[in-house]
Amino acid sequence: MRATVLHSPGDIRLDTLPDPEIEADTDAIVRVVAACVCGSDLWPYRGLNKPQTEAHQIGHEQVGIVERVGTDVSGISVGDFVIAPFMYSDNTCAHCRNGVQTSCVNGGGYEGCQAELVRVPQADGTLVAVPGDVDDELLPHLLALTDVFPTGHHAAFSAGVTAGSTVAVVGDGAVGLSGVLAAKRLGASTVVAMSRHADRQELARRFGADHIVETRGKEGAAEVREILDGIGADAVLECVGTGESMKQAFLSLRPGGTVGYVGVPHGVELNVPAMFGRNQALAGGVAPVRRYLDELVPEVLSGALQPGAVFDQTFTLDQVSDAYRAMDERTAIKALLRP
Amino acid sequence: MRATVLHSPGDIRLDTLPDPEIEADTDAIVRVVAACVCGSDLWPYRGLNKPQTEAHQIGHEQVGIVERVGTDVSGISVGDFVIAPFMYSDNTCAHCRNGVQTSCVNGGGYEGCQAELVRVPQADGTLVAVPGDVDDELLPHLLALTDVFPTGHHAAFSAGVTAGSTVAVVGDGAVGLSGVLAAKRLGASTVVAMSRHADRQELARRFGADHIVETRGKEGAAEVREILDGIGADAVLECVGTGESMKQAFLSLRPGGTVGYVGVPHGVELNVPAMFGRNQALAGGVAPVRRYLDELVPEVLSGALQPGAVFDQTFTLDQVSDAYRAMDERTAIKALLRP
Repeated sequence: MRATVLHSPGDIRLDTLPDPEIEADTDAIVRVVAACVCGSDLWPYRGLNKPQTEAHQIGHEQVGIVERVGTDVSGISVGDFVIAPFMYSDNTCAHCRNGVQTSCVNGGGYEGCQAELVRVPQADGTLVAVPGDVDDELLPHLLALTDVFPTGHHAAFSAGVTAGSTVAVVGDGAVGLSGVLAAKRLGASTVVAMSRHADRQELARRFGADHIVETRGKEGAAEVREILDGIGADAVLECVGTGESMKQAFLSLRPGGTVGYVGVPHGVELNVPAMFGRNQALAGGVAPVRRYLDELVPEVLSGALQPGAVFDQTFTLDQVSDAYRAMDERTAIKALLRP
Repeated sequence: MRATVLHSPGDIRLDTLPDPEIEADTDAIVRVVAACVCGSDLWPYRGLNKPQTEAHQIGHEQVGIVERVGTDVSGISVGDFVIAPFMYSDNTCAHCRNGVQTSCVNGGGYEGCQAELVRVPQADGTLVAVPGDVDDELLPHLLALTDVFPTGHHAAFSAGVTAGSTVAVVGDGAVGLSGVLAAKRLGASTVVAMSRHADRQELARRFGADHIVETRGKEGAAEVREILDGIGADAVLECVGTGESMKQAFLSLRPGGTVGYVGVPHGVELNVPAMFGRNQALAGGVAPVRRYLDELVPEVLSGALQPGAVFDQTFTLDQVSDAYRAMDERTAIKALLRP
């Protein structure tokens, strides 16, 4: 099969690799119909994680058709169209029952979704089959459920967004924009999106943002506070993961509010005494996508929820290096890949 | 009047000072009926805060009889028996309406409650008058509402304790013990108290603790996890404020759980990537006591809630240095002071 391999930072290629095999009886092999590039794929692409020692497959978001299943798989059948959350889980252990499928005792992360075929462990617990036909119009919205939208939703949910909440969103990547949509879906009365890019501002507005703040840092946070009754947001969604973005998030938050964070933290240090004095909470983490799918899939199938609007450019797998470049240079909000 | 003054770390004395005066029209002067020593008073007593530059009055917990009120005070009358939360607030600003009276725009902290008389700013917003007579039996329970019990409650509430929660409490001071009582009051199914002192273990049991863990640190946290389904607590109440106690709290917490912290942080550094990976949240801070009083006072008056059991020793104001020594040496759980 053809599969995307990161050879070293910046060197992303479509290589020919052996087809994946069933390794455990709980595995499934999925033929990818659509995959995409995640903001978190850019960390290793940019060489900002720990030094890369060997070439490896990459990509953790895909939807596709089940091609083969292990002998212990009973809930998913060959031919099913499935949504694959970016981490696998048995969906039965104590952590899964608590809604933290990302900490499943039989779970973990996996790479290799930017490819023609991918092996998914714990298929019964991980994959969600979609009834009926999936046309090209529905496809991006279902693909968005593998990571980006539930991650934005996790930020909003963790921050306690509910009917009438005031919300600020730090980060105008696809996750931040999804956070805008998620906050509105949860009933937020006012959403302030922080963005300096016209195309992202437009999508933020389309997703329901009431205000756009272009300024960053302390000054940007002061603008957010001014818009939100002079006190700041009930909930701030931190969708970047840097020390600077986290500072901006807390400065935009009112006393007693919660930062819901989903940006993978890189060099984040918290000012605990300041948080303590202002009763500002921090919640969130790696989004337990599987937890939210039972609620989100029907809304996408009915057309009530259309999170796939974050995909503004489509590439073939052959063009995967162009897709990464577009994401890296921020000329694409989120790149969809078709094998 | 006679008033407790901290001259320098370890040097606590009962001095004679001028009576406090009404300074703002919103002030009240309260004649103290009972006061107490807080765990947080021990930080300056031990010289563990920033270097002390001058002698100052101390104490922030008292109940008493209103002696005089400013011309703008309308909700509190001379002769009222009042509960005085340890921070003052107007109880009308945006932060107060959000339940964060500790961030009131007209509020703040005040010292000087370990005395015969004390000036309380923002009397209407701060003081809660108790109807009827207050006898010696009721007194400690009302006094406990000025700080210690609502602080334990704030830890439990912030950690999301609800019916069926599993809870671990780090810290067996009066706040930690109050946290045990608060967690049970909120419906916790299992509470594990971490304590190495027989007298405190006994009170923890009396307050509803189901298990006691004597071991500290990593090993203690492992014991907590083993007791709680092998995964750790849904909610951990961090009632100490040191780096070590915070580590122990997070190690005792299950993935997806919340640490509710009320120990004033001294040298706490958080492992953000670990919190992120395990979806562990941190919430809490300076307890907004006023927020909780409307709910708690009636329960104390009815006898349903008896938080004053934390007071195991009573001293006269003359003996205030003995009271501090007893708290410092942990021979008292919490010292009550009578003028």
